[in-house]
Amino acid sequence: MMIDYDRYDRIRAVQWQGDALRLLDQRVLPLRTEFVTCTSADDVALAIRNLTVRGAPAIGIAAAYGVALAARAAADAVTGQVPADALRAAFAALRASRPTAVNLFWALDRMARVLGDITSADRLAHEAIAIEREDLAANRHMGELGAALIDANSGVLTHCNTGSLATAGFGTALGVIRAAYAQGKLARVFNTETRPWLQGTRLTAWELLTDGIPAKLIADAAAAHLMSTGAVQWVVVGADRIAANGDTANKIGTLQLAVVARHFGAKLMVVAPSSTVDMAMPNGREIHIELREPRELLEHAGQRVAAAGVDAWNPVFDVVPAALIDAIVTERGVIERPDQTKMLRMFGNA
Amino acid sequence: MMIDYDRYDRIRAVQWQGDALRLLDQRVLPLRTEFVTCTSADDVALAIRNLTVRGAPAIGIAAAYGVALAARAAADAVTGQVPADALRAAFAALRASRPTAVNLFWALDRMARVLGDITSADRLAHEAIAIEREDLAANRHMGELGAALIDANSGVLTHCNTGSLATAGFGTALGVIRAAYAQGKLARVFNTETRPWLQGTRLTAWELLTDGIPAKLIADAAAAHLMSTGAVQWVVVGADRIAANGDTANKIGTLQLAVVARHFGAKLMVVAPSSTVDMAMPNGREIHIELREPRELLEHAGQRVAAAGVDAWNPVFDVVPAALIDAIVTERGVIERPDQTKMLRMFGNA
Repeated sequence: MMIDYDRYDRIRAVQWQGDALRLLDQRVLPLRTEFVTCTSADDVALAIRNLTVRGAPAIGIAAAYGVALAARAAADAVTGQVPADALRAAFAALRASRPTAVNLFWALDRMARVLGDITSADRLAHEAIAIEREDLAANRHMGELGAALIDANSGVLTHCNTGSLATAGFGTALGVIRAAYAQGKLARVFNTETRPWLQGTRLTAWELLTDGIPAKLIADAAAAHLMSTGAVQWVVVGADRIAANGDTANKIGTLQLAVVARHFGAKLMVVAPSSTVDMAMPNGREIHIELREPRELLEHAGQRVAAAGVDAWNPVFDVVPAALIDAIVTERGVIERPDQTKMLRMFGNA
Repeated sequence: MMIDYDRYDRIRAVQWQGDALRLLDQRVLPLRTEFVTCTSADDVALAIRNLTVRGAPAIGIAAAYGVALAARAAADAVTGQVPADALRAAFAALRASRPTAVNLFWALDRMARVLGDITSADRLAHEAIAIEREDLAANRHMGELGAALIDANSGVLTHCNTGSLATAGFGTALGVIRAAYAQGKLARVFNTETRPWLQGTRLTAWELLTDGIPAKLIADAAAAHLMSTGAVQWVVVGADRIAANGDTANKIGTLQLAVVARHFGAKLMVVAPSSTVDMAMPNGREIHIELREPRELLEHAGQRVAAAGVDAWNPVFDVVPAALIDAIVTERGVIERPDQTKMLRMFGNA
């Protein structure tokens, strides 16, 4: 079924302007619509680190444009050529910006492969544009593949934000929900608030509202109660890194949803472009889980909430073992009940 | 082992003053220490409804004092006697204040049993005082019973607030943690933030800090990741209502913790005074789950966070089936692997 992308995909978080990268500031959405303009790789690295831009695919795209900006700045004014050496610091700054999502490293590696000893800055910009375009195309294709797994009159629950804001557009898990809704299959859509950063409350709920998709926000801890009522047939989530055996790192709380879904007979679908697959990572135990500042749990809306002296543990990703995943959807196809053999067949060796 | 209650129990949330009930305002803790003074049953009903006082046992105690205040106001100035009829409105207002925790109804039923056609207001005040004293004694006893189930060098995770603030003092689940810590058994203490009302961040973390018990706050959704590391041996929680088969209603998120604990091999202990047991409720499916306003999820620290138009589903309790509970601890003793037969043996018919 054709999907009206003008209706279901109206937001662009990463906007390349040829001489600058314009980022929709996701720290202040949805109450304020503000943009941050990056003119250097350092600007982009900072925007990734401080969550101006977030979402595994969007981070990768932004990083690619960060390299393009560095190339533009370092290029010879006459020839437009840039020596690889001149980009070393830019690559290093971007690689150090966040640790868990592999798309960042995938995009930087792809940009590095374009580099000769000397490369034109335009060639690097075109590669970044290609990364962005391919991501959007992948999302639209995954939307159709994932929606095909969902029966009519289903309820879905999603976690964090995996929509247009987190990608080049349309989204991964939220793309599947958009496609399934457009096909008239969804009776119920729920999304978690996603503490501590409230990507669900602030971003996903806003994207769904913008699309006119009726949805209800729940507390992260209400998911089990919700699933116990039978209201949810599919939990649909994105991914930050998928290991070679199908183990999947995603936003903290995904593991909880996976265990609870299995307990109550709901299914778990992971939706991510193949750039999220890391065949060099044998399994999820090896994935570096980013720990962020306790402050994110101790403050709300900039106000201290906990007593002075309270300590917190703030991991922002967790790893779902492949055995709890019913389907991994990438633009290359669907893997049901993923394992190492099926992953290897679709994605090959690292 | 003797526990130094002066060290491990220094907070009193419900303070009877003979002619008024002084409540520590739990809406503004821990940043501000303020009290609300109630001089009527309506004042107390409002304080229960708006969460000035919360926690199943504390709600019951406050409601009993609410009846005592109504009796005092309605009593004959010379004889101090009050006709039962004069208290009908007070009972009705208090019964309507919150629906899920049975301790409220238990305490009001107990106060009603003291009523003759005519009763002295003092007799009612003494009954309320007895309810409070018995709750404190029950908590101290449960602390010892529950701590005895915990092995040395264990990690515990608790949810919501079940401490001195939620009870007459010492606490239920938090009382067990206090006792186990005092006995040197706890290597690790974690508590959830407990969205949407942040009882964990604001109240439990503060109680633990006040006691000098080292602890770490986690996001509700981080519990599965934490348990997957093996850091938690016991999840210790309170209860708002325990049905005749052992099914237990407690703060939203408890079901999620129960399912995840079972998956990762951690155990679940429910700690509550026998006033929380409702033998008239055959199982947990019948328990009325309070739905609160969506606003509690859409705002943070009084500031709107979600976009205008976003809807939310905000159930504030859920029900853990008895099959997921490893032990129910009341002041009457411990029931391991609870079921209807064991419950009936300890608590009799309704």
